[in-house]
Amino acid sequence: MSAGKLAVGILGATGAVGQKLVAMLASHPWFEVTALAASERSAGRRYRDAVHWLEPVALPKRAADLVVQGVAPPLPCDLVLSALDAVTAKGAEPAFAAIGTPVVSNASAFRMHPRVPLVIPEVNPDHLDLVATQEFGGGFIVTNPNCSTVGLTAALKPLDDAFGVEAAQVTTLQAVSGAGYPGVPALDILGNVIPGIDGEEDKLETEPGKLLGKLAGGSIEPAPVRISAQTTRVPVVDGHLLTVSVRLGTRTGAAEARRALAAYRSPIADLRLPSAPTRFLAVLDGDAAPQPRLHASLGGGMTVAVGRVRPCPVLDVRLVVLVHNTVRGAAGAAILNAELLVARGLIGGRRPARRPPPEPL
Amino acid sequence: MSAGKLAVGILGATGAVGQKLVAMLASHPWFEVTALAASERSAGRRYRDAVHWLEPVALPKRAADLVVQGVAPPLPCDLVLSALDAVTAKGAEPAFAAIGTPVVSNASAFRMHPRVPLVIPEVNPDHLDLVATQEFGGGFIVTNPNCSTVGLTAALKPLDDAFGVEAAQVTTLQAVSGAGYPGVPALDILGNVIPGIDGEEDKLETEPGKLLGKLAGGSIEPAPVRISAQTTRVPVVDGHLLTVSVRLGTRTGAAEARRALAAYRSPIADLRLPSAPTRFLAVLDGDAAPQPRLHASLGGGMTVAVGRVRPCPVLDVRLVVLVHNTVRGAAGAAILNAELLVARGLIGGRRPARRPPPEPL
Amino acid sequence: MSAGKLAVGILGATGAVGQKLVAMLASHPWFEVTALAASERSAGRRYRDAVHWLEPVALPKRAADLVVQGVAPPLPCDLVLSALDAVTAKGAEPAFAAIGTPVVSNASAFRMHPRVPLVIPEVNPDHLDLVATQEFGGGFIVTNPNCSTVGLTAALKPLDDAFGVEAAQVTTLQAVSGAGYPGVPALDILGNVIPGIDGEEDKLETEPGKLLGKLAGGSIEPAPVRISAQTTRVPVVDGHLLTVSVRLGTRTGAAEARRALAAYRSPIADLRLPSAPTRFLAVLDGDAAPQPRLHASLGGGMTVAVGRVRPCPVLDVRLVVLVHNTVRGAAGAAILNAELLVARGLIGGRRPARRPPPEPL
Amino acid sequence: MSAGKLAVGILGATGAVGQKLVAMLASHPWFEVTALAASERSAGRRYRDAVHWLEPVALPKRAADLVVQGVAPPLPCDLVLSALDAVTAKGAEPAFAAIGTPVVSNASAFRMHPRVPLVIPEVNPDHLDLVATQEFGGGFIVTNPNCSTVGLTAALKPLDDAFGVEAAQVTTLQAVSGAGYPGVPALDILGNVIPGIDGEEDKLETEPGKLLGKLAGGSIEPAPVRISAQTTRVPVVDGHLLTVSVRLGTRTGAAEARRALAAYRSPIADLRLPSAPTRFLAVLDGDAAPQPRLHASLGGGMTVAVGRVRPCPVLDVRLVVLVHNTVRGAAGAAILNAELLVARGLIGGRRPARRPPPEPL
Repeated sequence: MSAGKLAVGILGATGAVGQKLVAMLASHPWFEVTALAASERSAGRRYRDAVHWLEPVALPKRAADLVVQGVAPPLPCDLVLSALDAVTAKGAEPAFAAIGTPVVSNASAFRMHPRVPLVIPEVNPDHLDLVATQEFGGGFIVTNPNCSTVGLTAALKPLDDAFGVEAAQVTTLQAVSGAGYPGVPALDILGNVIPGIDGEEDKLETEPGKLLGKLAGGSIEPAPVRISAQTTRVPVVDGHLLTVSVRLGTRTGAAEARRALAAYRSPIADLRLPSAPTRFLAVLDGDAAPQPRLHASLGGGMTVAVGRVRPCPVLDVRLVVLVHNTVRGAAGAAILNAELLVARGLIGGRRPARRPPPEPL
Repeated sequence: MSAGKLAVGILGATGAVGQKLVAMLASHPWFEVTALAASERSAGRRYRDAVHWLEPVALPKRAADLVVQGVAPPLPCDLVLSALDAVTAKGAEPAFAAIGTPVVSNASAFRMHPRVPLVIPEVNPDHLDLVATQEFGGGFIVTNPNCSTVGLTAALKPLDDAFGVEAAQVTTLQAVSGAGYPGVPALDILGNVIPGIDGEEDKLETEPGKLLGKLAGGSIEPAPVRISAQTTRVPVVDGHLLTVSVRLGTRTGAAEARRALAAYRSPIADLRLPSAPTRFLAVLDGDAAPQPRLHASLGGGMTVAVGRVRPCPVLDVRLVVLVHNTVRGAAGAAILNAELLVARGLIGGRRPARRPPPEPL
Repeated sequence: MSAGKLAVGILGATGAVGQKLVAMLASHPWFEVTALAASERSAGRRYRDAVHWLEPVALPKRAADLVVQGVAPPLPCDLVLSALDAVTAKGAEPAFAAIGTPVVSNASAFRMHPRVPLVIPEVNPDHLDLVATQEFGGGFIVTNPNCSTVGLTAALKPLDDAFGVEAAQVTTLQAVSGAGYPGVPALDILGNVIPGIDGEEDKLETEPGKLLGKLAGGSIEPAPVRISAQTTRVPVVDGHLLTVSVRLGTRTGAAEARRALAAYRSPIADLRLPSAPTRFLAVLDGDAAPQPRLHASLGGGMTVAVGRVRPCPVLDVRLVVLVHNTVRGAAGAAILNAELLVARGLIGGRRPARRPPPEPL
Repeated sequence: MSAGKLAVGILGATGAVGQKLVAMLASHPWFEVTALAASERSAGRRYRDAVHWLEPVALPKRAADLVVQGVAPPLPCDLVLSALDAVTAKGAEPAFAAIGTPVVSNASAFRMHPRVPLVIPEVNPDHLDLVATQEFGGGFIVTNPNCSTVGLTAALKPLDDAFGVEAAQVTTLQAVSGAGYPGVPALDILGNVIPGIDGEEDKLETEPGKLLGKLAGGSIEPAPVRISAQTTRVPVVDGHLLTVSVRLGTRTGAAEARRALAAYRSPIADLRLPSAPTRFLAVLDGDAAPQPRLHASLGGGMTVAVGRVRPCPVLDVRLVVLVHNTVRGAAGAAILNAELLVARGLIGGRRPARRPPPEPL
């Protein structure tokens, strides 16, 4: 264990998001992976033997040698990052919190729980204060949204701040990595698209309201935004694309909307968190942007890309959004939440040194 | 030339839609391909040598042996089917009409011309009467819509009849065959999706109004429907998928909308045209339908499939539509228009025998 | 049950090959599906509810309504076609044979059994006589080869007849449908190729020897051909491509080899079996043929395509082979074997009428 | 221009390999891009406007602002890296050499020229001495091999050193990026594979002999290795996979062959060139490795991966090889050759500082 780093346990370490966490934390300046937990089938085996490694980099040696443990507290770590499925998370995450281990979760189980913060650091970092209301035990649970919700909300936030967002129509084109592993059978998706992803539309229609809501008096008052989501699965590995049309409270033109998007300033920019991208939102030029293959990895996968901001003949403004679903929409989302918790002193009890300011590109 | 068949020339015969016309007409009961015309590069060569054959069936022998001619009248045929690009069509199609050759065109050049019928036989067959107003010469021009427009309008028509359609939001996921050949580079689309298809959104936003419009006093009064279209290209070979949300004049539930779609009766059903599918619209069950790979070829590619008819939290009703873009949306659309013209006596001067009624499935 | 048709049961009816059998038999002139059997999970449910239908045609109504039964005799049918996995086949197929039901199997369990014919009708129809040696009971078991083996052997047979085949190097590029359903996860194969398909190389290296062998004295003497197979999985839905290099007994040029391939005459051509293609082997011209998307469906998927017949700098002759893996390599292979058994009087006790001779294309 | 860096011009800068060179040199420790040259169509425009940027990273700002020049000397640089097509290279590369500009080329035009070194630094670095024999003028031309040749030769070299290689059978599964841009039409390759890539088989059959040959008396005596290559294109973006069977001079087992591959030591390891990977050859375990998506980017794309080393029933040993075609097989190959030329004092007249030794993983 490197001096000065926080020890991190990963719940659901053999799944697709768990693997991404392992890969992203391999050389993290603040965190070090000290425990890997997964289902009974994997527990007791070395991670290298238990995992069907899917990341396009070599399996980090330190993680490879760890013996996988069961998903139950205690684990030898200062916090856990959870990549569990919703059902397992429902039972396991409170158990970790109960013994004083902070849980930073990508699972959906507690996202809409009234005392659990649902946070995108660049959107609603103040919602973290909600943890003070939790009664899980000495620890707490903090969650990040569904992968598509991250992209949608990143685009809605600047518009909501500037003009108010009343309603949004969204169609998603989602990558297969969002379904985990083994996930989508090749026979279903090769040269095909599939409408209707189980459970996703409900998340897209409810989570943005909480994210754009206001914390007051110890609870979140959701923003009054109506959302209609149609989801589809497409034969793309990484990167969810969303077409969005928005009804604004203050009718405005596309040029103003574009300016508001481009001008949006991350409220945590000054913290210079290790995983925070230089640009939270990149507003791209061109009629054919963003695209998953070209733009999903901007900012190391942590930048949300927006393009084609145009007037909408039916609502007010329309645009296209791209989010790297397993980075910004899952593993990176949880890591950035954990970094913010550390910076706020809610984990680890000290604030690590800031990154030096980035050089301009 | 088989006795009793009409002689058909194909304009743009080496392109993707031209090839589909050749393939679909190989054993047509009324039509026989007697002339193939293409650009100067191909003219003078046998079709088998000039074409980069892309259809998954053997090149029909008769067509293979024809010598490709230039795109200029006259051609040895009773009518021409045009799969030309818009620019070439602009000049060539009136030239054929001028010498008395009926032109049934898939090109966009004259779709919005006030005297040119834009027809989906199952939607607005009466618009064919507009040809009486044309002054191109002894012939005339009839067009079919853009491939995505066919799918969208097929779904809107029953709703418009029953409840009135005020507005529609549509996002398309379009197959690469819609871009012709060579069309989309593999490097652009493999494992990727591309938003924004040049020119398509304008067609989707304007053509349905004409198709749903009323012919009165020798001109079409377009239906007052506002449409917002966002297009994307996806790595699918054939089959455009559309997610659609609709604002209805009479607010109604999803169940009523579904019933209207399922109950829609084709106004040309009694004609039993050779290329008309048993079902114009197939309303599919299940949360994951329609899909291009499974449903694009229903009815030989001439059936439009609809699924996921649900209430929309922002507009009124939403649904998913699938159309085989090169069959129902292009080659088959033109062929069916030609068949309808024959049945109406506007081509060939006689009505061929009807098909026997189909057996129930 | 249609008068005069043989009643067929399908074992493993819900799997990918089972579905293909259902689809191909929907309008078969000799056979009618009267029983569908699958694992306990499906037994007792209507086929329409038990199956995740993957074929791009509508589920045939008659089959859809059948109640799925367990994989155990007796079933109400004159013969069974087996699309079982090898382990289940090992127990179930002899049980059907024991009660007098002929088993025509695509499973690998008995392919190399010394008394079980392994047959490609156009290659070694005489091997069917081996059933006389079987002692399973009143019935018998006949098998077809592995999907890739069909393609390889189809190409080797004319060369073996003409020049003798001593050895062959083969690399396969295999479609995902060959792995069944759910089969290959999309995350593994999208934009990727995977070397090494479990169990396939052994089949490719052993089955051709039996197929090219001689039946004498009640047993098969395998042909002395050494084969080296390297398999890969590619993101293709249907159609296995094989690159092959051959060492011949009589050294010969590529032109002679090509002539031998083109001149090969199917020994069962005169029987005009319903599923036998007009051409068993199609030798294609051009530097870029055959290709799965263009040529896998030639002859309704029952034609094996060969191209690029050239001299080999290391062995003698090289070429490329394409076989539709779920039709010619699986479902169609079993159906054609069943048709041959009927024609030989080994099933049904009568010879159905021949097809009329095909018209030239 | 950064102090102490060598100024590099890129010929063919708007093509796929040219773009990869721009991306890889964006933060190179020794080289800085000062000139971009392309065809007349692009010349005179800012690179940002002239290029259809395909790399999944942001276009480097410095390159973006450069005005593209024509492909003719002189250019303001110390050396040029050429990503030209063969025909243009034939004329342009000698013209640059003639005025004293060293040319490090990925083009095929001069690869087999008797006085032009064809070099993989880890295989035959001594061949660079051949430049002394060139009479192009004050400069010289050095080339790297075809992308597939790099992978094949990397695997053959250790076997040739240890046992002698007499012959090799290779089948390639090549990514679409190898065909440049626009390259392969999506309609040709989506869900398909295409045998026979124009010109590639000849390169694969001739280049390895020169690479494995001996420099003696001012010329290369090619190694006496016979190669049979069958190429295919597959729907993969980056990474060529090769199945290989080898006839060895000294018959040996697969285990010994594997040991020789794993033990191979790069002759330039001590130079620690900036683009040289820690491992030139990675011998992977497992039945399903290597794979393009998982392993093409090992070592930043500069490591050649080998797997499935097994005995061959027809020749002696067989194995699977993977090479990142646009990095190790093209742009990175040229950059590493340039680095080696600098380290040898053949470019720039001084040796830059070595990299520090890498830390063990």
